[in-house]
Amino acid sequence: MNADYKAYFEQHREEHLNELKEWLAIPSISALSEHKGDVAKAADWLAHKLKAAGLEHVEIHSTAGHPIITADYLHAEGKPTVLIYGHYDVQPVDPLHLWETPPFEPDVRNGKLYARGATDDKGQLFLHVKAVEAILKQEQSLPVNVKFCIEGEEEVSSPNLPLYLEQHKDKLAADAILISDTSLLAPGKPAISTGLRGLCSLELTLETANTDLHSGTYGGGVPNALHAMVELLSSLHDKQGRVSVEGFYDGVQELSAEMREEFAKQEFDEEQLKESLALDSLYGEEGFSFVERVGARPTLELNGVYGGFQGEGSKTVIPKEAHAKITCRLVADQDPQAVLDAIEKHLKAHTPAGAKLTYKPKEKAFAFNVDPSHPMLQKAADAFGAVYGTRALFTKDGGSIPIVEKLSSTLNAPAVMMGFGLPDENLHAPNEHFNLENFDLGLLTIVEYLQSI
Amino acid sequence: MNADYKAYFEQHREEHLNELKEWLAIPSISALSEHKGDVAKAADWLAHKLKAAGLEHVEIHSTAGHPIITADYLHAEGKPTVLIYGHYDVQPVDPLHLWETPPFEPDVRNGKLYARGATDDKGQLFLHVKAVEAILKQEQSLPVNVKFCIEGEEEVSSPNLPLYLEQHKDKLAADAILISDTSLLAPGKPAISTGLRGLCSLELTLETANTDLHSGTYGGGVPNALHAMVELLSSLHDKQGRVSVEGFYDGVQELSAEMREEFAKQEFDEEQLKESLALDSLYGEEGFSFVERVGARPTLELNGVYGGFQGEGSKTVIPKEAHAKITCRLVADQDPQAVLDAIEKHLKAHTPAGAKLTYKPKEKAFAFNVDPSHPMLQKAADAFGAVYGTRALFTKDGGSIPIVEKLSSTLNAPAVMMGFGLPDENLHAPNEHFNLENFDLGLLTIVEYLQSI
Repeated sequence: MNADYKAYFEQHREEHLNELKEWLAIPSISALSEHKGDVAKAADWLAHKLKAAGLEHVEIHSTAGHPIITADYLHAEGKPTVLIYGHYDVQPVDPLHLWETPPFEPDVRNGKLYARGATDDKGQLFLHVKAVEAILKQEQSLPVNVKFCIEGEEEVSSPNLPLYLEQHKDKLAADAILISDTSLLAPGKPAISTGLRGLCSLELTLETANTDLHSGTYGGGVPNALHAMVELLSSLHDKQGRVSVEGFYDGVQELSAEMREEFAKQEFDEEQLKESLALDSLYGEEGFSFVERVGARPTLELNGVYGGFQGEGSKTVIPKEAHAKITCRLVADQDPQAVLDAIEKHLKAHTPAGAKLTYKPKEKAFAFNVDPSHPMLQKAADAFGAVYGTRALFTKDGGSIPIVEKLSSTLNAPAVMMGFGLPDENLHAPNEHFNLENFDLGLLTIVEYLQSI
Repeated sequence: MNADYKAYFEQHREEHLNELKEWLAIPSISALSEHKGDVAKAADWLAHKLKAAGLEHVEIHSTAGHPIITADYLHAEGKPTVLIYGHYDVQPVDPLHLWETPPFEPDVRNGKLYARGATDDKGQLFLHVKAVEAILKQEQSLPVNVKFCIEGEEEVSSPNLPLYLEQHKDKLAADAILISDTSLLAPGKPAISTGLRGLCSLELTLETANTDLHSGTYGGGVPNALHAMVELLSSLHDKQGRVSVEGFYDGVQELSAEMREEFAKQEFDEEQLKESLALDSLYGEEGFSFVERVGARPTLELNGVYGGFQGEGSKTVIPKEAHAKITCRLVADQDPQAVLDAIEKHLKAHTPAGAKLTYKPKEKAFAFNVDPSHPMLQKAADAFGAVYGTRALFTKDGGSIPIVEKLSSTLNAPAVMMGFGLPDENLHAPNEHFNLENFDLGLLTIVEYLQSI
């Protein structure tokens, strides 16, 4: 059986890759309003491919933001139902000058497909469309009931999907939610994520005057918005990277010996990480390994800081305003709203004299955890084993897919996160890519899984 | 006599303003290489006007950077020689969105001429061209010998004029150097600056990895270039704005009782300043007034800080690099190279673990001081008195015209800084403008001065 599919996918490989490239060429950046039309175009493209794959009831639902796509194939009476979730929107691309080939001109080099969205998440989502299509073409039926629910707002924290889920609970009901938007641990080392960090984000502005000022005429006598900003932002962490905001760690669980053991099983190579990213040293809270810091500890990151002159040469200006963008990754029972409140209080208390703070809370999502002993997760680990030759480990992922917690709690079904990416595929960064080895094995693993349950 | 000139300038006012607007419309930004052609165009424009004014030996000298223009009229035998210095280059214009009218579309509103360069320095320099032209037209001769030496690199710290000065010392020899590139204290309160702060500048970059990273996959476990940058930059000042760099204040003179008295004479209204700039509070070293801080104390200003995502929406990125631009204003005997060295040492010592520092020193210039009892300065104060009805005060200016110290020491002549700007004319900032009252009175004051010496 597996051999048949191997031949089928080999035979259609070029055709599949060309299709995926076509999709990747559409710059569906959900965060930037000028790309609204492109996001819609990417949705249409996907709906068309779902129909072509043989799925039924393919529908594009408009929302207050970007569209949601649903489809299904429900002819396996008495068999479980799997809801496949994914997203067709992508991250912004700057700094553009660091891309080796343009982000929306997909390019295959050394067995890797380079493009924004190649791994996060168009490439991984595409595997499910083609796996289902393959089974339908080979068998004229599916061994389980399959539903798709695909959104275009994951990269902006899914503002509109929760309402849709509430309103269509029955239509979307499933025994498991299948998601490929995470990573293997390393080439040949598959993993199923049983935890995702939550998230909250905010923006802040400091203003010190009603106009930019000349540093000759005023320098040394008036506040400088950038001085105020670096002073304020430097108050957020101690030297070891522990967040200094009072109350930030409320709801974080201490790591048990069992959890530390589970993390240790990954045999993560910190030296290799340092080398591959050209890091002088790792960084973070004392007393935790890298995988523990990323998997079980929260973080507060400055994603952008800017103010004053950024052009060529110099400009003797005292900037009137400075800006910062911040996101936090949350774990366990941290309440994203409580974290935002704690940060707001800290920022207000630490804003230097002479500066006026504007604080804007943005996204928020709880962390998510699932019990790996659930049969739907055990079978997924087996499917990896059958295809990769190595059974998947159950891990905790540092990233956030804010909607997973919502999907799982609303539909009361476990989330099965079968990731086919790799940790160094430059998600959210220049030169994002997808290793085609996992493109090939991913198709087979999904077929194997759907047939095993 | 004065009455004749008043009538003459009234009669030619519209024509003069139209000419100046034509010049201001040329975006001669010396710091940006894409404007090299515009800088050359602004130089040609000025050379043409100097010829039209009746000056002789008008020459455009090319340099390694932007051209120097010289001209003279040397027919007043036995009379002193005045060298008029000024610059036709302007500052960059961003943030462009804060301009009420475009920076290179000059616009008169409420008796003010708005444009980049309106007061710094095209507008002020233009007064000298038109004052000399007026005398030549009215009297067919000048009461003194006049030379012009005009550059296009003042806003980038005059890299090429010093060599030209050394090579043409004799040709440029003068009894006084006349410069209008400073300000009145307030409307109707003329001032002659007898001191300018020196300057040094630098850029720095911190790098923490070879690629931007996803805050989900890595956040909390790897260094963030922005965290390192805000920590490093916040180490440069204490809470009161005193610079924390060891050795920074070497060569700074303590303020004597006499100097404090001289500053107090300005009767500077700090409350009014706060109100006009919408400042919550003033800022700076303890124990000094605003005019003392700006006139007699050095400062270190962050002019630009940037890294990570600056677009609309959010991006969960850990930036690999962050950048900062810094300038210092120096006083008394501070050596700009020693200050740069001290800052470099501080930055190296305070760069957080995991970050790699790249440090680039840029401009440097000594502070300048002149003795106000010199007759050429006393007569300048009298000329203001005759036209404005108030004799000019002798002040210390916080700004830097790096070339003034060089001009004065190379030509061994006092610099007479007759400023016609106002402190709130948004030099180096959006909505730069020139109050036309001082356009009118400036022309008369220059004529009065040239006739009095």
